[in-house]
Amino acid sequence: MSLIVQKFGGTSVANAERICNVARIITDTYKAGHDVVAVLSAQGDTTDELIEKAAEINPNASKREMDMLLSTGEQVSCALCAMAIEALGYPVVSLTGWQAGFRTNSGYGNARIKRVQADRMRTELDKRRIVIVTGFQGINKLDDITTLGRGGSDTSAVAIAAVLGADLCQIYTDVDGIYTADPRLVPNARKLEEITFDEMLELASLGAQVLHNRSVEMAKRYNVNLEVLSSFSGQPGTKVKEVVQTMEKSYISGVAKDKNIARLALVGLQDTPGIAYKVFSLLARNHINVDIILQSIGRDSTKDISFTVSKGDMEQAQKLLEDNKSSIRFDHIDVSDNVAKVSIVGAGMVNNPGVAAKMFEALYNAGININMISTSEIKVSVLVHITDADRAVRVIHDRFYDEFNGER
Amino acid sequence: MSLIVQKFGGTSVANAERICNVARIITDTYKAGHDVVAVLSAQGDTTDELIEKAAEINPNASKREMDMLLSTGEQVSCALCAMAIEALGYPVVSLTGWQAGFRTNSGYGNARIKRVQADRMRTELDKRRIVIVTGFQGINKLDDITTLGRGGSDTSAVAIAAVLGADLCQIYTDVDGIYTADPRLVPNARKLEEITFDEMLELASLGAQVLHNRSVEMAKRYNVNLEVLSSFSGQPGTKVKEVVQTMEKSYISGVAKDKNIARLALVGLQDTPGIAYKVFSLLARNHINVDIILQSIGRDSTKDISFTVSKGDMEQAQKLLEDNKSSIRFDHIDVSDNVAKVSIVGAGMVNNPGVAAKMFEALYNAGININMISTSEIKVSVLVHITDADRAVRVIHDRFYDEFNGER
Repeated sequence: MSLIVQKFGGTSVANAERICNVARIITDTYKAGHDVVAVLSAQGDTTDELIEKAAEINPNASKREMDMLLSTGEQVSCALCAMAIEALGYPVVSLTGWQAGFRTNSGYGNARIKRVQADRMRTELDKRRIVIVTGFQGINKLDDITTLGRGGSDTSAVAIAAVLGADLCQIYTDVDGIYTADPRLVPNARKLEEITFDEMLELASLGAQVLHNRSVEMAKRYNVNLEVLSSFSGQPGTKVKEVVQTMEKSYISGVAKDKNIARLALVGLQDTPGIAYKVFSLLARNHINVDIILQSIGRDSTKDISFTVSKGDMEQAQKLLEDNKSSIRFDHIDVSDNVAKVSIVGAGMVNNPGVAAKMFEALYNAGININMISTSEIKVSVLVHITDADRAVRVIHDRFYDEFNGER
Repeated sequence: MSLIVQKFGGTSVANAERICNVARIITDTYKAGHDVVAVLSAQGDTTDELIEKAAEINPNASKREMDMLLSTGEQVSCALCAMAIEALGYPVVSLTGWQAGFRTNSGYGNARIKRVQADRMRTELDKRRIVIVTGFQGINKLDDITTLGRGGSDTSAVAIAAVLGADLCQIYTDVDGIYTADPRLVPNARKLEEITFDEMLELASLGAQVLHNRSVEMAKRYNVNLEVLSSFSGQPGTKVKEVVQTMEKSYISGVAKDKNIARLALVGLQDTPGIAYKVFSLLARNHINVDIILQSIGRDSTKDISFTVSKGDMEQAQKLLEDNKSSIRFDHIDVSDNVAKVSIVGAGMVNNPGVAAKMFEALYNAGININMISTSEIKVSVLVHITDADRAVRVIHDRFYDEFNGER
């Protein structure tokens, strides 16, 4: 007998029929002799509807009260799912975040899990009950309800798997695994059987929105075996692990794009030491994450620094820099949000020279201009014009997967 | 400075506009220098909608999971109301039942409050914050969420007022006070300025559904000053107290009717001791509340016992008695749900002989037949045919209030 944690997203529990479907997946696992803890998100659009309700009353509501409001969504889906399992005749209990022992810091709206006091969950599992837990939430030291922010339910599931030492943490969603590229964009994209945590982290941060980075990071840290699979298809999904068997078969595991970025360029900086420190510590102090950074020699012994941030941070980053123009000293800022990042990711890349060149060749053949380039051991990212992004993903995918004939 | 507890029912918080209205009532009280704890019900039809959702998935869902589900309704309205108060610029915090310290027994769906650990509420009040608390709920010794059943939010409010020693507990609803009769039925019904706990208890149990009995009983026990008033009119309501100033002015404080009753008659019982004990202990063991009881001499040294129960208990009561026919020994059971109870209530009644006679006279003049009669120190109830009930209320009200010229 093993313990399996299963997480079901909002689409998977969107209506009564789908909740009953989820109940069947859970009870099938239980029938097979496993202990099951299931973590559920709020139903479909519930969270958005609650946000709308709040906005009607107070567009600047405190995050504390927003969390009080939003946390009800998961409570509803968990209670309903427990009822569906009762109807199938299995022992079950639903638990809120605080009942399941989720203790977080005080960061309302985007709290971090500090610990999971799993006594209640253990007691219920010892009674051979299926345990349904509200994702996305916990309580802080004041006993106030907090929510975990984007990807929170995935993180809740991985945290439970880590604390209870689960054998597997299955993330059920509306796609049936991790693909070599977005299947809506690249019709011949292929589902991966396995992928490493590191590859998944790069893919997630690059805009392949299947798993949130926080959950993958936690899974890596506590070595929780993840599986991403569909709650609708019944097919095996993609396993996410520390080391995968098939790693050597191909250089890259996927092509991803991210349109939610903007590029800023500081033009005409003094070519003196400490400039980069000044710029990026200023942004870091204001919680602005910087992604690709590129420094180049400008004219007249000046230099330029370009970097990307998420679209939502663009205006604030620009204002911060303008406000500190006199201390940083630059000529002007050039800003553009007509950019997209296209990346290839693969743990096998490091041992296969020429992968980046092959990517650039594919783009060159398609007449797509590259603005910026960034590389790491397991990825190559390029910045292209936003209107070229989808085509770039397709030509890169074709270039790699036609050649390797889909071995992975 | 005094502490005022205010309770707002589902109609008072049904939509964004009404929530903002409630927020104004609360902040007006706060601005006047009072500490305020507000207890809210779920918005309008939320509870019914959640019950429907559950029924779609499992018509026999456990009460434990129903409570998990239903308790979200109050959490939503409280968070939204806190946001509305934030928008008005006042310090506020919303608390769930468990955060506010409501500890109940384990009776899911109809739990009783065991104690209120008010530390958190006291801390928040000490910070001069307005405290918004979810009505209708608490947690049991397992830390499972429980709901308090019908009238639960009123009871929550009174419990808080009792524990915190509040100076006043205001129950805001969609009527602006306690009337001498249902104003929809009796156009010239008058609003009472004051009424005693005992009168209110009789009125509530007689079908005047303004305040639930549990809350009035608790208010009486802990001597909490209640006021029933409208969240829409802005007018003073009706005070409910231990002793009222105007008590002697009139004999009766109200006329009420209850159509949710049924009458059972056991015909042809042996005229031996212990029969009544057998019948009513059987019903009590099965949690069936019996209201009016009437015993009469039948033919041939037998007797008949008639009594009323609520409509929902009628079938079970009949079945229980039929099943025990051999031990109780009777000829047959006569059952009718075409009955209604019409009552007059008044603490002044006991010192004014002839009140009952005046009521019977009014009914006689209107040609309304009386089936059963029951009296106590402060009320007289009669059973009439259900189609006569509304007319009975009107003629009785006219008889008393025309004569006394509306002094009360």
